[in-house]
Amino acid sequence: MKLIVIGGVAAGMSAASKLKRMKSDAQIVVYEKGAHVSYGACGLPYYVSGENDDHTKMIARTKEQFEEAGIDVFLHHEVVKVAPERKQIMVKNIENGDVFIDHYDKLMIGTGTIPIKPPFEGLELENIHVLKTLEDGIDLKNIAHQDDVENIVIVGGGYIGIEVAEAMRYIGKNVSVIEQADRVLTNFDSEITDLAEKELSKQGVQLLLNEKVEKFLGEKKVNAVQTSKGIHAADLVILAIGVKPATKFLESSGIHLANNGAIRIDREMRTNFEDIYAAGDCAEVYNKVMQENSYIPLGTNANKCGRIAGENIAGNHVKYTGTLGSAAVKVFDLEIARTGMSEKDAQDLAVDFTTVFVKSNDRPKYYPDQTPIWIKLICEKRTRKILGAQAIGPKGVVLRIDMFAIAIHNKMTADELGMTDLCYAPPFAGVWDAVHIASNAVK
Amino acid sequence: MKLIVIGGVAAGMSAASKLKRMKSDAQIVVYEKGAHVSYGACGLPYYVSGENDDHTKMIARTKEQFEEAGIDVFLHHEVVKVAPERKQIMVKNIENGDVFIDHYDKLMIGTGTIPIKPPFEGLELENIHVLKTLEDGIDLKNIAHQDDVENIVIVGGGYIGIEVAEAMRYIGKNVSVIEQADRVLTNFDSEITDLAEKELSKQGVQLLLNEKVEKFLGEKKVNAVQTSKGIHAADLVILAIGVKPATKFLESSGIHLANNGAIRIDREMRTNFEDIYAAGDCAEVYNKVMQENSYIPLGTNANKCGRIAGENIAGNHVKYTGTLGSAAVKVFDLEIARTGMSEKDAQDLAVDFTTVFVKSNDRPKYYPDQTPIWIKLICEKRTRKILGAQAIGPKGVVLRIDMFAIAIHNKMTADELGMTDLCYAPPFAGVWDAVHIASNAVK
Repeated sequence: MKLIVIGGVAAGMSAASKLKRMKSDAQIVVYEKGAHVSYGACGLPYYVSGENDDHTKMIARTKEQFEEAGIDVFLHHEVVKVAPERKQIMVKNIENGDVFIDHYDKLMIGTGTIPIKPPFEGLELENIHVLKTLEDGIDLKNIAHQDDVENIVIVGGGYIGIEVAEAMRYIGKNVSVIEQADRVLTNFDSEITDLAEKELSKQGVQLLLNEKVEKFLGEKKVNAVQTSKGIHAADLVILAIGVKPATKFLESSGIHLANNGAIRIDREMRTNFEDIYAAGDCAEVYNKVMQENSYIPLGTNANKCGRIAGENIAGNHVKYTGTLGSAAVKVFDLEIARTGMSEKDAQDLAVDFTTVFVKSNDRPKYYPDQTPIWIKLICEKRTRKILGAQAIGPKGVVLRIDMFAIAIHNKMTADELGMTDLCYAPPFAGVWDAVHIASNAVK
Repeated sequence: MKLIVIGGVAAGMSAASKLKRMKSDAQIVVYEKGAHVSYGACGLPYYVSGENDDHTKMIARTKEQFEEAGIDVFLHHEVVKVAPERKQIMVKNIENGDVFIDHYDKLMIGTGTIPIKPPFEGLELENIHVLKTLEDGIDLKNIAHQDDVENIVIVGGGYIGIEVAEAMRYIGKNVSVIEQADRVLTNFDSEITDLAEKELSKQGVQLLLNEKVEKFLGEKKVNAVQTSKGIHAADLVILAIGVKPATKFLESSGIHLANNGAIRIDREMRTNFEDIYAAGDCAEVYNKVMQENSYIPLGTNANKCGRIAGENIAGNHVKYTGTLGSAAVKVFDLEIARTGMSEKDAQDLAVDFTTVFVKSNDRPKYYPDQTPIWIKLICEKRTRKILGAQAIGPKGVVLRIDMFAIAIHNKMTADELGMTDLCYAPPFAGVWDAVHIASNAVK
């Protein structure tokens, strides 16, 4: 059996590795457009900041290591077409321009995303960058560390925008974030983002909210960003507007795509073609809380779904238990995390819900260095089931949201979680943990 | 309705407070043998060390605050007899020796424990102490900080013994721990305690394992401990051998006690008498994993069960969902935690189980300050359900064991938890968290 994998980062290489472990005689060929496979793109902000100074640390396994394991990897090879009825693909060698055909028994698509770049005037100027691939990271680091790059404007206040803002403050730059919404991190409700924005301001990040980019100004290099509200000096612009599934090459393939271009898959990662699987940021993912497919491009889903795809390509029928939309981001001295539905999600789904927003602490007041934790819960009114949780605070926030994730996964009510036997010792938690206190506060 | 509460620390005051919130017209009288109510005894080691220098911080609510809320509190009052058939108790005022009778409609027993003091020769010498009550803590702190107290011998290597050992090292004393078992912290399996013992030795605590105390030596003050293996100099001895339920006064009452003296209760905290409730360290507690009552004297259970008792005294019929035996302890620079069954528990219950012991990390290697986490899991072989988890490491250990606690509470299999959508961001976790990695390693 020959598997072709398109895209060699998270989902693709997870599938390839899993299949190889299960069926060592499977022939596996990977085509990757970029210069690297299997790297942790989420580490890029910390590479750009210099907190990590070795980009190879982000590479989980190299091309050579995969080849030793019997997986053939072709870098700088872009798949430009898929023909499911003939089980063939058309591949372009980016380095020499050669185009050739390859055949598969099974096909795995894990092409991820491309950054959204609206057609702003001036987009072609130098020093306008995105941070998507390892190559982007290496480029951006070189530019950002130059002494004459003082003013950095980040377009977009999502996860990447905020992480990059922190990275740029870390190296002492003037940083502004332009966000067209009324707040940053819009995957979170405003109780949480209010506190996040306070921290960003405190740390010297200028937030330009309700503001839309109109064009980029400059001669050769960018020197300013013109928005709906004014002109902001910029020696470097980083576009972090968002991503879209990298599936343009599939448009005429007959593989079903959602409106946003994400590949439609079932819970076994299968597309509408029996032998074609997809997973990761190029595809939808089953959402356990919403009970329908969602588009949530995060490495967590990509790795899990990729592994499941590999297992099913080997002949199993494993279903993904489903994403909860769990996500976390560090905002300077604060941890922020979420899982399940936000209040907005619950409104959109017309769920009859109730919320609480509770401030408590990570440990008892008699143990040194107590820090606050703010938790918001969204619960179904009738059943009191927890539907979503969000939290912010200096310490122990993300792992507590993970507790809520497991609780939501198991359809727990707030009352049941409020009485669950969690660990207690003064250095780590109160006898009623912040998780209990929030759960027991649900009206 | 008149409720009498015997014992005013965790379970007793939780019950009293809950009842008062639900039925503001209930008459509530609390008799407490000691000088304080409602304090966090688990904070005592950190008070003795001086990390917390204000003992009032450990007091959640004072006698005066309870009285403002309409709860009458009598300190230094010991209940010496309960007569269920007449619904009366006999109370002794410790300060003046007066004895009197009081009557109840409902009775709540939350007398906690007394420290075990075997009848060692020399036990009457000065500078031999226990650490149980707030008064003990105040005394012990005074003595331990004296300059001529150099050598401190702790008898018992359980939670308290180890916490006190750390406290005494913190103030620069020579510390030995005598433990008759072959390891410390015997609630944990040896994979975990091996690492804990390495840390204790590294931090200068002398561990005297497989060693039994024979007698205490000295004139007026203790100056040495004679054991089965030798004589150890001691300016101060702290007995941390363990505790037993403080229920001697109930022996002729007709209230059913277990062999160890713990009060037998049902899941609503009711004893064999309809109007008598008990909870906390003086009573058994329903164990959700074992599916039977256990004796697990921890503040977690005491607070939850006390609150439930209060609710049921008010007329409800709420059952405790059950303890998991979750517990945590800080051992210098390491966090240690457990939940569910240990391997020994599983052996004793003749469960067909399998275990894994996995070392992973708290975050990806490309993010600074990665630290290791060791996790041991105990799973039922046939169903692959997680029965127990234990972990040790410098950071993020306790809250991860809490995740396992919630998983075990929900009877999750290792496979399901291994695919649950937990948060991922490089500062906090890998894309496969340590919890996933351990779960997915179960054979």
